[in-house]
Amino acid sequence: MMYSFRNDYSEGAHPRVLQALTDTNLEQTDGYGTDPRCLAAADLVRQLCQAPEADVHFLVGGTQTNLVVIESVLKPFEAVIAAGTGHVNVHETGAIEATGHKVCAVPAPDGKLTPALIESVALGHTGEHMVFPRLVYISNTTEVGTVYSREELAALHGCCRERDLFLYLDGARLGSSLAAGDLTLPDLVRLTDAFTIGGTKNGLLFGEALLFAQARPDFRWYMKRRGAMLAKGRLLGVQFQALLEDGLLLETARHANALALRLRDGIAALGYPFWVDSPSNQQFPILPNDVMESLLAMGYRFEAQHSPDQGHTCVRLVTSWATPEQAVEDFLWDLSLSSGAGKETL
Amino acid sequence: MMYSFRNDYSEGAHPRVLQALTDTNLEQTDGYGTDPRCLAAADLVRQLCQAPEADVHFLVGGTQTNLVVIESVLKPFEAVIAAGTGHVNVHETGAIEATGHKVCAVPAPDGKLTPALIESVALGHTGEHMVFPRLVYISNTTEVGTVYSREELAALHGCCRERDLFLYLDGARLGSSLAAGDLTLPDLVRLTDAFTIGGTKNGLLFGEALLFAQARPDFRWYMKRRGAMLAKGRLLGVQFQALLEDGLLLETARHANALALRLRDGIAALGYPFWVDSPSNQQFPILPNDVMESLLAMGYRFEAQHSPDQGHTCVRLVTSWATPEQAVEDFLWDLSLSSGAGKETL
Amino acid sequence: MMYSFRNDYSEGAHPRVLQALTDTNLEQTDGYGTDPRCLAAADLVRQLCQAPEADVHFLVGGTQTNLVVIESVLKPFEAVIAAGTGHVNVHETGAIEATGHKVCAVPAPDGKLTPALIESVALGHTGEHMVFPRLVYISNTTEVGTVYSREELAALHGCCRERDLFLYLDGARLGSSLAAGDLTLPDLVRLTDAFTIGGTKNGLLFGEALLFAQARPDFRWYMKRRGAMLAKGRLLGVQFQALLEDGLLLETARHANALALRLRDGIAALGYPFWVDSPSNQQFPILPNDVMESLLAMGYRFEAQHSPDQGHTCVRLVTSWATPEQAVEDFLWDLSLSSGAGKETL
Amino acid sequence: MMYSFRNDYSEGAHPRVLQALTDTNLEQTDGYGTDPRCLAAADLVRQLCQAPEADVHFLVGGTQTNLVVIESVLKPFEAVIAAGTGHVNVHETGAIEATGHKVCAVPAPDGKLTPALIESVALGHTGEHMVFPRLVYISNTTEVGTVYSREELAALHGCCRERDLFLYLDGARLGSSLAAGDLTLPDLVRLTDAFTIGGTKNGLLFGEALLFAQARPDFRWYMKRRGAMLAKGRLLGVQFQALLEDGLLLETARHANALALRLRDGIAALGYPFWVDSPSNQQFPILPNDVMESLLAMGYRFEAQHSPDQGHTCVRLVTSWATPEQAVEDFLWDLSLSSGAGKETL
Repeated sequence: MMYSFRNDYSEGAHPRVLQALTDTNLEQTDGYGTDPRCLAAADLVRQLCQAPEADVHFLVGGTQTNLVVIESVLKPFEAVIAAGTGHVNVHETGAIEATGHKVCAVPAPDGKLTPALIESVALGHTGEHMVFPRLVYISNTTEVGTVYSREELAALHGCCRERDLFLYLDGARLGSSLAAGDLTLPDLVRLTDAFTIGGTKNGLLFGEALLFAQARPDFRWYMKRRGAMLAKGRLLGVQFQALLEDGLLLETARHANALALRLRDGIAALGYPFWVDSPSNQQFPILPNDVMESLLAMGYRFEAQHSPDQGHTCVRLVTSWATPEQAVEDFLWDLSLSSGAGKETL
Repeated sequence: MMYSFRNDYSEGAHPRVLQALTDTNLEQTDGYGTDPRCLAAADLVRQLCQAPEADVHFLVGGTQTNLVVIESVLKPFEAVIAAGTGHVNVHETGAIEATGHKVCAVPAPDGKLTPALIESVALGHTGEHMVFPRLVYISNTTEVGTVYSREELAALHGCCRERDLFLYLDGARLGSSLAAGDLTLPDLVRLTDAFTIGGTKNGLLFGEALLFAQARPDFRWYMKRRGAMLAKGRLLGVQFQALLEDGLLLETARHANALALRLRDGIAALGYPFWVDSPSNQQFPILPNDVMESLLAMGYRFEAQHSPDQGHTCVRLVTSWATPEQAVEDFLWDLSLSSGAGKETL
Repeated sequence: MMYSFRNDYSEGAHPRVLQALTDTNLEQTDGYGTDPRCLAAADLVRQLCQAPEADVHFLVGGTQTNLVVIESVLKPFEAVIAAGTGHVNVHETGAIEATGHKVCAVPAPDGKLTPALIESVALGHTGEHMVFPRLVYISNTTEVGTVYSREELAALHGCCRERDLFLYLDGARLGSSLAAGDLTLPDLVRLTDAFTIGGTKNGLLFGEALLFAQARPDFRWYMKRRGAMLAKGRLLGVQFQALLEDGLLLETARHANALALRLRDGIAALGYPFWVDSPSNQQFPILPNDVMESLLAMGYRFEAQHSPDQGHTCVRLVTSWATPEQAVEDFLWDLSLSSGAGKETL
Repeated sequence: MMYSFRNDYSEGAHPRVLQALTDTNLEQTDGYGTDPRCLAAADLVRQLCQAPEADVHFLVGGTQTNLVVIESVLKPFEAVIAAGTGHVNVHETGAIEATGHKVCAVPAPDGKLTPALIESVALGHTGEHMVFPRLVYISNTTEVGTVYSREELAALHGCCRERDLFLYLDGARLGSSLAAGDLTLPDLVRLTDAFTIGGTKNGLLFGEALLFAQARPDFRWYMKRRGAMLAKGRLLGVQFQALLEDGLLLETARHANALALRLRDGIAALGYPFWVDSPSNQQFPILPNDVMESLLAMGYRFEAQHSPDQGHTCVRLVTSWATPEQAVEDFLWDLSLSSGAGKETL
């Protein structure tokens, strides 16, 4: 079987994470995240973020985290501003609307919001016959692999402060964004109201660490009400300790990014264009359909994203902590072969 | 540290489950439960249940499962009938109401519904100015440790058929109930419309297997919308394979029950009464407060359930696959010492 | 056709209310309650209540008002405490749960909550695995016709202050309660956090005036989101002006109560017992089934409430501003005839 | 005070409607729409629609009707397709999302959906990680005054049949659309799954008649649960009888449309362009700001819709059953004066 570039959650856990789960397996702890492992992991998050006052929680999945955060921040009639490509707008089966909140989506070609885009939504909503946009949702990396710079995030933060908007950053792929850009964890505390450190796509079995810059004393009620508390909550604490205590988060993210850039460079060298210029672990080359089919026939796995025209498909290639270098080299080699073959058949 | 009888989810996973996770860790699979491990585990459930047509899903937690099942079965104006002690009525922070459905609770001293109790609720609801009770929620074992017999479940099933009610059995502690009573998995398919096989309290890291007797083709939409799909879904498949493929479910449940009955007999021999007569892995002795305090002071951990009078407390003792026999013997020994001490201080 | 004692909303509007609607029919005003008629009616409410700072809104119906108020006051995980007979618990098809909130119902034989009942619910809810009871719902008159005294309401108010509970009084039949008891409008401002002055059952075509003791600047967003703003909102203002500007509220309520007490005394004189001792416009006599059937056969209309035993039915008789004295006298006469006849057939 | 062209619900009821309410005021009826007046009005709707099997309900307001209909038709994970300008998308404060459903909005310059627009949404939603678009919402007249032709509606109907989509037509201004276009009530039964006949904007105090082509036996549960049942439901029956029994619906709509077209022609004759070409009772001329200010200063009232450029404003002028011809002539005269004055100041 060839390697699957389909996602960054195709394997289990990074060996150090699995080892930590094994080592602590028979410890007895209380449930639902009140255990010493979760407390220690939360302390670790605060320490790395230089945010001693921050409120830290651990949840199992990303959609779950997004919906609980948004529901806990907004009044019923308030709404979310998100890029059209935003995960909460497209890929969560209406999970936000299921909590009663409208998502006001605005087209953003590179997946990134700007102060101008935010203002266009805010200004279009006036008075009690419309929803009140109140939370800005961004993801970093974005759904199309792009990354916010510190300057860009600072601009969003300024815009949100001015308009009293809550800025929430979905960090499902935060590791990759930190490794690819100039933002740091302390920057995120300073420039957002809440953000997540995604574990699922960074070598954990599962898990999102959530940080609120300010205390939210009733957040656990919101979690429980949506079924978002894990009985053996300590599994989250143990895993995030392993991810954060000696740099595994960035180490794995750098590995994934490096292989993604190797893919990018190799594909570009073959003359293929990209949908978007991504510095992170998701790459979106546009391939002739016969080349794509040839790779699939060899056993490679990846997602077809969309069709820019009848003869081409934009595909998504994702790398992770688990991707072997050889898999990337093999893919590039096979792509170059397919490309040659493809050209001959034209 | 003395042993904690606080819950059956105090430890991690049964070693065979952990081994299975380790063995399959680097397999690459698709996400969200569409992988070969989940498919195989679902086949295994159907086979053990002798239900080739059943619809099987895997979810992470119990509250999550309850809310998604109930939302997927009911029309918006329909309601749940549950015992007053029912988990959905008391311990889920209004998770069912959060999906818009009323829980019509009826007092049931031993935690078990009966046809008469169901009818009392159904008859009290007439016409469009009231909710329409449509789903009957039971748990087995119940929240107070009791167990439905085959005859009792058949009576509920008959009542539900007659009144066109959907019968849903929450099997968070199904293993313990199967080991303690006369019901089998095929009985459950025949006598309910849906039930769960709880993994969290039976040696898995987490996980509930959910079986609908009849196909529900859009159930995955309901799951995703509530954040109830696990990205690395195969973790559920792998664990349930380990739990079900060579009898681990019943093996662990029998162990837990046996130790619970040993506790029960030992405590009874010391002359203490019980709140309810439980044949399963939860026991509810009523202890003098000084005896209870003495055990807590030694380091034992358990929940205080309620206070039948000023001098006594009903405590909950829970055993599991992980409970060592020695821990039970130690507890009984220390209880007998405390009891003696307690009596002297009177 | 004999008179219907089925409800106090069987007719249209009191003639003075209808006249006001006719007189203002061709005025042009803005919509949705921002017009001069609503502003003037709100001022009138504040003046009568001696509450210059109060926030006043007008809504069409009672269920609608209850659900919008409760949703606007509670956080998602917070719950309502209500008597088992409370309208929000029984007769609103789960409208409160439809906004995501649990109703914690407590049996209250005479339909009235007490501090002890409220505390029993509050104390039973501890921690994040349960809902957080935060709003106390009472109705005055209650659903069984009883009325809170000033002393009783003051005790509830004290209990709610102590426990930081929001006290909401549903005044669908407030007029009748004011006419029957010792409470005044200014008392209600002082002793509750919000209450309604029901118009539908007091001679308006429809309408509830809602008063919050303190400003709730975003309440109109909550209203609109639930479809609870009337386009021609001035219809509510015009009607409440008519009801409140020269004492029509109490005048009609006194008429209804007086006729209800005449019914009560006449029925008692015939030897029939009552389910509950009601001083207001709803009376609940318990009649032999043959007597009840005889009245129905004559064409009288009323609701059968419940059956205390096989031979008797508790019926509900309701009077209103529209009930003619003669209708009451006729009913009593026919009841006495039926009773005689009934006794002869025994 | 000059006339307000702000809306078609600025006055009370058409005199014949008010008379009917007065004539029936002291009739005693049961509540909540089960009375003879509502039954007769529903029969009348069925008769005019040539739809003896249709299911007819009466509700108070438009937002209320839209949210109850949509909630009653869709499964929780299903979504609405609407034009970006659609009332449910913009002007209902998230009332649809408050029932848990996403509105998938698609830009439609003239406010009208087409099969191509519907397909673009449907094709963009695949699989369980996205909502499932299932109900198509259109309004007729649209929010920008345009009207669907029979051919256009037939095309939408064909597209919906093919894709198993539910077609719901919001007829808040149905009268105006019927008077302006070639559709008839029987056409609407044939070409939609449900539609409303708006009363509020056609001379009633309030009220929407709702027709489902097929029976929906539990619709009244949905109504009650959302507070959408009127206690004195007969007010809706009485008013719709008056509106429908001798042609008042079309008579008033024709009056409104004729005056709107007189406005249109007069404004066009002065050389002003229009935002959209509307044949119905809403007109959207684009006026120089100084001209608009001059009209407002004279006391005319209308809504400023948007600003196509810094010097101009698109305003909305609405006529109704109540608009006097003289008010239109006065407005045109004053506009021509303002226009002259305006030109001099340039």
